[in-house]
Amino acid sequence: MPERQMPEDASFVRFRRGNKCLGQLSDSIGATGLKNGDTISFHHHLRNGDAVLNTVVEMLAGAGLRDLHLAVTSLFPVHAPLVEHIRNGVITRISASFIAGPVGEAISRGVLTHPVTLRTHGGRGRAIDLGEMSIDVAFVAASAADDMGNLSGRTGRAPCGTLGYPMVDVNHARHVVAVTDTLVPFPVTPIDIAQDKVDFVAVTRSIGDAGGIASGATRPATDALSLGIAENTAAVIAASRLLEDGFAFQTGAGGISLATAAAVGREMGARGITGSFACGGITGFHVEMLEAGLFRALMDVQCFDLAAVASYSRNANHMAMSASTYAGPHVGGAVVDRLSAVVLGAAEVDVNFNVNVTTRAGGVLIGGSGGHGDAAQGAQLTLITTRLTAAGFPKIVQDVTTLTTPGASVDVIVTEAGLAVNPAREDLMDRLRKARLALVSIDDLAAMAADAATRAVPPRSTGPVVAVSEYRYGRIIDEIRQISEA
Amino acid sequence: MPERQMPEDASFVRFRRGNKCLGQLSDSIGATGLKNGDTISFHHHLRNGDAVLNTVVEMLAGAGLRDLHLAVTSLFPVHAPLVEHIRNGVITRISASFIAGPVGEAISRGVLTHPVTLRTHGGRGRAIDLGEMSIDVAFVAASAADDMGNLSGRTGRAPCGTLGYPMVDVNHARHVVAVTDTLVPFPVTPIDIAQDKVDFVAVTRSIGDAGGIASGATRPATDALSLGIAENTAAVIAASRLLEDGFAFQTGAGGISLATAAAVGREMGARGITGSFACGGITGFHVEMLEAGLFRALMDVQCFDLAAVASYSRNANHMAMSASTYAGPHVGGAVVDRLSAVVLGAAEVDVNFNVNVTTRAGGVLIGGSGGHGDAAQGAQLTLITTRLTAAGFPKIVQDVTTLTTPGASVDVIVTEAGLAVNPAREDLMDRLRKARLALVSIDDLAAMAADAATRAVPPRSTGPVVAVSEYRYGRIIDEIRQISEA
Repeated sequence: MPERQMPEDASFVRFRRGNKCLGQLSDSIGATGLKNGDTISFHHHLRNGDAVLNTVVEMLAGAGLRDLHLAVTSLFPVHAPLVEHIRNGVITRISASFIAGPVGEAISRGVLTHPVTLRTHGGRGRAIDLGEMSIDVAFVAASAADDMGNLSGRTGRAPCGTLGYPMVDVNHARHVVAVTDTLVPFPVTPIDIAQDKVDFVAVTRSIGDAGGIASGATRPATDALSLGIAENTAAVIAASRLLEDGFAFQTGAGGISLATAAAVGREMGARGITGSFACGGITGFHVEMLEAGLFRALMDVQCFDLAAVASYSRNANHMAMSASTYAGPHVGGAVVDRLSAVVLGAAEVDVNFNVNVTTRAGGVLIGGSGGHGDAAQGAQLTLITTRLTAAGFPKIVQDVTTLTTPGASVDVIVTEAGLAVNPAREDLMDRLRKARLALVSIDDLAAMAADAATRAVPPRSTGPVVAVSEYRYGRIIDEIRQISEA
Repeated sequence: MPERQMPEDASFVRFRRGNKCLGQLSDSIGATGLKNGDTISFHHHLRNGDAVLNTVVEMLAGAGLRDLHLAVTSLFPVHAPLVEHIRNGVITRISASFIAGPVGEAISRGVLTHPVTLRTHGGRGRAIDLGEMSIDVAFVAASAADDMGNLSGRTGRAPCGTLGYPMVDVNHARHVVAVTDTLVPFPVTPIDIAQDKVDFVAVTRSIGDAGGIASGATRPATDALSLGIAENTAAVIAASRLLEDGFAFQTGAGGISLATAAAVGREMGARGITGSFACGGITGFHVEMLEAGLFRALMDVQCFDLAAVASYSRNANHMAMSASTYAGPHVGGAVVDRLSAVVLGAAEVDVNFNVNVTTRAGGVLIGGSGGHGDAAQGAQLTLITTRLTAAGFPKIVQDVTTLTTPGASVDVIVTEAGLAVNPAREDLMDRLRKARLALVSIDDLAAMAADAATRAVPPRSTGPVVAVSEYRYGRIIDEIRQISEA
């Protein structure tokens, strides 16, 4: 006979009247069993306004934890306090997609025990999804949360918009700890990450300053040189035959990129074209293009300013996507693979069209791919905008100091002195010539850059390896070495 | 030296300019490697309007596949053609949460080779998430899709709203095939299931008729007997001390349930109470309560009518959730665990408060738990509404024909002849007595039902087992046996 009275299951009763709130952030150590040597992950949607990473690492350091692997999406100047924790052996390994500011400087000087692993946004998603990088505890900064772990990036005191990066982490981390300064009654609305992915909720005084999200220009450039580059870039796109209904576009958030977007938008309007989507980091300028009907949708892995956050909160056609959906090389077709054109920047470009956005002249770590390598390979037309020189150094060089994005993914380099097309794209050269665009060779651009430069690019350092640069599939394509300067 | 020119990865190029569309539905066999004995999954958001399951199984049968395991959420009368495929050995195993109509009848008569496994909605999520039930190919009916596999339940010709059930399947199935009749330009908006979870897209003539979603009453009952039960149920809730700010509520979509919700809503309005959420299958009536400010949110695993579909499309506080988030016993606290009160129905209740919603008198399979057992255990107050008799049979009996929800999860039985409180809830009895609600014993209700009945409940069949009923944690708590009637 079957049993007629079922006792309640103990593991269920535990939560029946309970919740997931920790008494304090430090309780996350005991709750998750976090121990020396473990991997902790963070995301950077609050960018230079983020307070969560510093708060958590400070807490872990105070608890005596050591030898931690920091699996972060990006580090910014605000994360300078990490340097001390690296020096003290609290953090001995870092994986990241982008590292700017004092932490990058310190790494370049050899402070970290093990070399950093730099991955693209899509490559990081791949490494996590396929189990190459396992995460013990994912700390998710949430601008609002309820006590069962539903998380929102759209409300609270420091809303950051989409949570595209931790959407990957929470699927695989052994434990997920949400960190919020705004605990709201169940359920938080609208939910960006659902409660079944979150184990614990810790309330802190402040997760940071949403004002720090927009750390660079998120308006089109207005100076003549930038506008010239932007107009040339838009002219290439206009001549490429890609500018038709369904056009899909990614730009960075820099002034030249947005000025390019503005010029492309004007051309779309003139031709009566409706694009399909704009993607990547999204700014208020992209929102204006959506609302003007130039695109049907925005696909947003990360809001780059507060106007984008507001749009994501009110417009169902402004959609979140995970880093894997955005850029993963392992998902059978990512959003970047549907890009018609992408406009990207460069610290250096070489005569083989290779791009460096990882180190500055001299080899100091100042960035990393982010989605650069992903979008460059995915798009049908990849344009790199750059000036000939920066800080006196040439930016078009014989050999990039660090390889971030292989030249095979790069179609056109646009500078104030003209544009060069990758010789592998003869079709494109023909089309641009027919549109009467003046082309120069990449070697000519390099020569002009050398002429205009007042300083020579220092040779690659031969010091110990401080970081490796992985391509999106996981192969190491370059090394960053300790700099020897005093 | 690091490599400077990266060849494009072959697996990437495959999708670079491609898409996931199959030439025809039958190409899904070759694309997924589907073979005899495999497990195929389906969801029932189109309910009795679904055409996808029949279309796919017909196609698989035509291709000569046999011995398939059908892992479906629910089966309805519209799925009658399955009987022939079962008879022919195309389908030899079925797992489901609810089976109504000719398929249930046929199973009760012994047509299926192996016994059906009946799970609750949360139990099915658990079985899939924890690897107990693996899925070879999940077929996901999508009212709109793009050619990279982004799926929407909100647009197209047969919109069904949230896709809460396949949200679980797509995380674990070896392959996911989206089936749609509305292929839209990339990207579909808004996205309910993202492209990284979908391998292939097959376009069919029709996924079904959204008009079939609302197959029962989704308006409050108006007859005196039903209203009496509803008023009594609402009175219990009002007297329970649970009706305060933050009140969380689930009802079924039947007339008595909705009449109860209406009465509870009036009381909430009178007291000036704002509830937190209503959950489960959502109807237009729940939408009205949301829009009247009686609840802050709807948490919707499945839209029960087109008004709910429309609301989900326009209101960010009307939120989708997966079956695991809704009801999983394995997620560290599901949405049902936050319910203040749930109002559920019954085919039979016994004197130990056990509930049967799986078989009708005589033992024929007519349903299954759905979320019944999940919500009953999760809620602080579980009320079962039922008439004393149906079709001449008593509904309050000594021993339920089939155990679906154990009496330990059931607090109150409300009938037209009065209400009975589970003796384990002395606290509740005291409170209801203080509120001057007349209580009767469950034995008295059973006696009244026996008096009112004109037919005796047939004894349990002793035939071969045709189905097993799993409780949400996976333990088999009852068996359904082949009926012996001619």
